[in-house]
Amino acid sequence: MTKHILILPGDGIGPEITAEALKVLECVKARFGLAVEFDQALVGGSAIDAHGVPLPDETLDKARGADAILLGAVGGPKWDSLDMAIRPEKGLLGLRSGLQLFGNLRPAILYPQLAAASTLKPEVVSGLDILIVRELTGGIYFGQPRGVRTLENGERQGYNTYVYSESEIRRIGKVAFEAARKRGGKLCSVDKANVLEVTVLWREIMQEMAKDYPDVELSHMYVDNAAMQLVRAPKQFDVMVTGNMFGDILSDAAAMLTGSIGMLPSASLDENGKGMYEPCHGSAPDIAGQGIANPLATILSAAMMLRYSLAENEAADAIEAAVSRVLDQGLRTADIQSEGCQRVSTREMGDAVVAAL
Amino acid sequence: MTKHILILPGDGIGPEITAEALKVLECVKARFGLAVEFDQALVGGSAIDAHGVPLPDETLDKARGADAILLGAVGGPKWDSLDMAIRPEKGLLGLRSGLQLFGNLRPAILYPQLAAASTLKPEVVSGLDILIVRELTGGIYFGQPRGVRTLENGERQGYNTYVYSESEIRRIGKVAFEAARKRGGKLCSVDKANVLEVTVLWREIMQEMAKDYPDVELSHMYVDNAAMQLVRAPKQFDVMVTGNMFGDILSDAAAMLTGSIGMLPSASLDENGKGMYEPCHGSAPDIAGQGIANPLATILSAAMMLRYSLAENEAADAIEAAVSRVLDQGLRTADIQSEGCQRVSTREMGDAVVAAL
Ligand SMILES: CC(C)[C@H](C(=O)O)[C@@H](O)C(=O)O
Ligand SMILES: CC(C)[C@H](C(=O)O)[C@@H](O)C(=O)O
Repeated sequence: MTKHILILPGDGIGPEITAEALKVLECVKARFGLAVEFDQALVGGSAIDAHGVPLPDETLDKARGADAILLGAVGGPKWDSLDMAIRPEKGLLGLRSGLQLFGNLRPAILYPQLAAASTLKPEVVSGLDILIVRELTGGIYFGQPRGVRTLENGERQGYNTYVYSESEIRRIGKVAFEAARKRGGKLCSVDKANVLEVTVLWREIMQEMAKDYPDVELSHMYVDNAAMQLVRAPKQFDVMVTGNMFGDILSDAAAMLTGSIGMLPSASLDENGKGMYEPCHGSAPDIAGQGIANPLATILSAAMMLRYSLAENEAADAIEAAVSRVLDQGLRTADIQSEGCQRVSTREMGDAVVAAL
Repeated sequence: MTKHILILPGDGIGPEITAEALKVLECVKARFGLAVEFDQALVGGSAIDAHGVPLPDETLDKARGADAILLGAVGGPKWDSLDMAIRPEKGLLGLRSGLQLFGNLRPAILYPQLAAASTLKPEVVSGLDILIVRELTGGIYFGQPRGVRTLENGERQGYNTYVYSESEIRRIGKVAFEAARKRGGKLCSVDKANVLEVTVLWREIMQEMAKDYPDVELSHMYVDNAAMQLVRAPKQFDVMVTGNMFGDILSDAAAMLTGSIGMLPSASLDENGKGMYEPCHGSAPDIAGQGIANPLATILSAAMMLRYSLAENEAADAIEAAVSRVLDQGLRTADIQSEGCQRVSTREMGDAVVAAL
């Protein structure tokens, strides 16, 4: 049965990096005889430009019908002055929520070939391998009520609602406990249970769930301390699980520990393993169109897609091995370049991965 | 006119470190002939143990009557299972809110003598000097409604409210712009204006205020990017301003960049410059009572107090110079110890500062 993969290039460097990932996917399709078909659609700023909305119905329909989605990135200064309801980010948030992609997996891995790229001392980050599990369709990102109102005294007041129900916490907890079980067996749940009631419930549910996972060692950490510990001793972590907002912040900090956020893929999964895959980095409008962006995070996202949503482990392994090989060959895009290495363009990097396959 | 200083030792290492700060304050009192008087009161876990509540009326009254407050730290596992309403943290939050100490100043400074303590590479952090201005009496910490309710389907739901009014944003903005004006002239306002309406208002007000501070260069950054940039290139920042929750997270990350959070003081000020001063670190229950805690952050908080709330700049300078001198002498508590330096106890460190005075 043919699987349908939807590619959403998005904005900024999105089109350049997804083009390279598609090249790699076409290559493994031929080599492994995969029964996959590719389609494309608009999301974010490019959809606003074409249709006036960041998530056209056609795109959401195609996404619903697809077996997996590969996204570039969305957003850019061009659309920054738009009203929040029709900004590029709403396209991304609409996809996450519309497809109920609540389980966001963000690995922070240090590639040995790129150890020097980190701003942290080698002994602090060498061998780093953390998985951040972020809840992606709830919390303060989607909580109601929200908005800006005028108070009786005439001044305006902005408000948002941070909200989680037991079942929302449980389903992301399950993703995290299962992931920890398959990895190092350690799960750190991050909350602010000394101040926020919603995270008191979060902690309680995680504690309750721990009974069903006696093989996983659960710990709890306040979010401020977690931000600190990521800088102080990141290798103490195996899997971290947290809500949407804290996950947004901590996963970016964790990614930057590696010094090569241009290398990090991510997956956003629904209850059935259907998923959207995207690089951890953003749309980088400052370097868009120059052909210098690093396509490897998107190529590795494609590998994650093959593994998690299409069960094509062999093809996924092959892509990851090919990426490792081009790094060994000393090829580097601008963001990860270092002395003695050969600087290549976005396209050259994609070609090199294909050649290594 | 005699000034009244209230000392709140708190929990964990709090009593040990405030004792050393008091010793230093008594010394500068004698040396500079300061007209100050000291009083003490209970807050946090120690108040719960004695009176059943984390912030007894007597403590709040004394705090209201004082010209400045020096706090150790609150909290510990002993009180972790208590209901949120009577936990040690509520004592701290009650003081902040009761005294309207909305302006929290958290410097992250790298002491040249301690450069090696950072987990970041020397070139990334040498000379680091950031001031984080955190709003401290509003936002999601105090927003209503809040709690845990039972939904119609029988499951529980936790909720908190992230809320800021124009005037709350304006008063913390003023603190930040004024601070930036006196420092490097650069202010970075941190928000999540691409997702949260409350921070759209935040950004708008900051932009509006910038017109009154043509000498300050205002920039905006999303909180996830800010967490990343603090790891990537922290020296790009001068002053950062943000809300209560983001400030909690970012200030801890920034403090840890220095590798010596045991050195960092903080101030929480009201509209008139009255303030509460405390170390950036917590109550460290794991090492409480062992006499090994670093008292320097509290001693430096006392210096900040003399400068900001008592206008005793000379005495403040003297304390800071004395601290620098003991570091030059190679004296180190356990948390900042390094090869070739002499390890000292909490008390020995306090004595050394007094001797250096
Ligand atoms: C673009 C933005 C809405 C998004 C988020 O905040 O979730 C991004 O920062 C991310 O982490 O994927
Ligand atoms: C103890 C806790 C309530 C407090 C806070 O979250 O504000 C602390 O983390 C701080 O930063 O002062």
